[in-house]
Amino acid sequence: MAETVAIASDHAAFDMKAALADWLRDQGHEVIDLGPDSTASVDYPDYGYKLAQAIADGRASKGIALCGSGIGISIAVNRHPAARCALVSEELSARLCREHNDANVIAMGARLIGIEQARACAAAFLSTGFAGDRHLRRVDKLSNPAFDKESA
Amino acid sequence: MAETVAIASDHAAFDMKAALADWLRDQGHEVIDLGPDSTASVDYPDYGYKLAQAIADGRASKGIALCGSGIGISIAVNRHPAARCALVSEELSARLCREHNDANVIAMGARLIGIEQARACAAAFLSTGFAGDRHLRRVDKLSNPAFDKESA
Repeated sequence: MAETVAIASDHAAFDMKAALADWLRDQGHEVIDLGPDSTASVDYPDYGYKLAQAIADGRASKGIALCGSGIGISIAVNRHPAARCALVSEELSARLCREHNDANVIAMGARLIGIEQARACAAAFLSTGFAGDRHLRRVDKLSNPAFDKESA
Repeated sequence: MAETVAIASDHAAFDMKAALADWLRDQGHEVIDLGPDSTASVDYPDYGYKLAQAIADGRASKGIALCGSGIGISIAVNRHPAARCALVSEELSARLCREHNDANVIAMGARLIGIEQARACAAAFLSTGFAGDRHLRRVDKLSNPAFDKESA
């Protein structure tokens, strides 16, 4: 099923972002490229927040977040309660995050995995549905974080 | 350096939690086991939130979060702006998350990696320092998520 996929990165993952955006369009998806638009140094949280905001606003149904390791941008995206971002490096996790967690974003590390692995993860992510059932209650809890107001 | 390490899981990772808690104590760390205390079915967000709260309150300096894939609990922990949780399955990422992201929590998947791999990741995580420098500004941004107030 064709989706609107938002994609964002930092400078370290700029080339992987371009390659994945091309591949996504070839697969029939609409792509919203949230930047950056060069390899000049940027801060991954800025682009993670842009991506989460695009998901929260409904401008995109899915997202792909990239940085050197995938770690930093995955933390940033998950700051927003509307985003459920799974850091993945292989297809099994890219499938499980859809089935069990209804993940709407995957993060990947452009310095840790290659473009073929990244495409395979994206394909698994975009072709797998949410299993619902017992997982639904847990996913709902991710939308309503329960912390002490003072500390959050 | 000995640290106070909070550890939490869901039912799927209960056995790995017990094994890692024993190993952490053998390594000289103080362990705060936030549960669960049996393999009865629980919801991973509840335990992820407990762990993030322990970090936010300063009761623990580091945390280890476990579920079946590591994905769900990593999302939950990262809901709290005081937590920086990296989902890892190998030592390089467990080291990089400290050096580049000053991660204070790692998440791992008990159904995806074995106990030796988990111990190796925990060892790398607990023995690596933050590199500071250019990474500091980015990490600071993770503590102050910038979203539209309406959508978050």
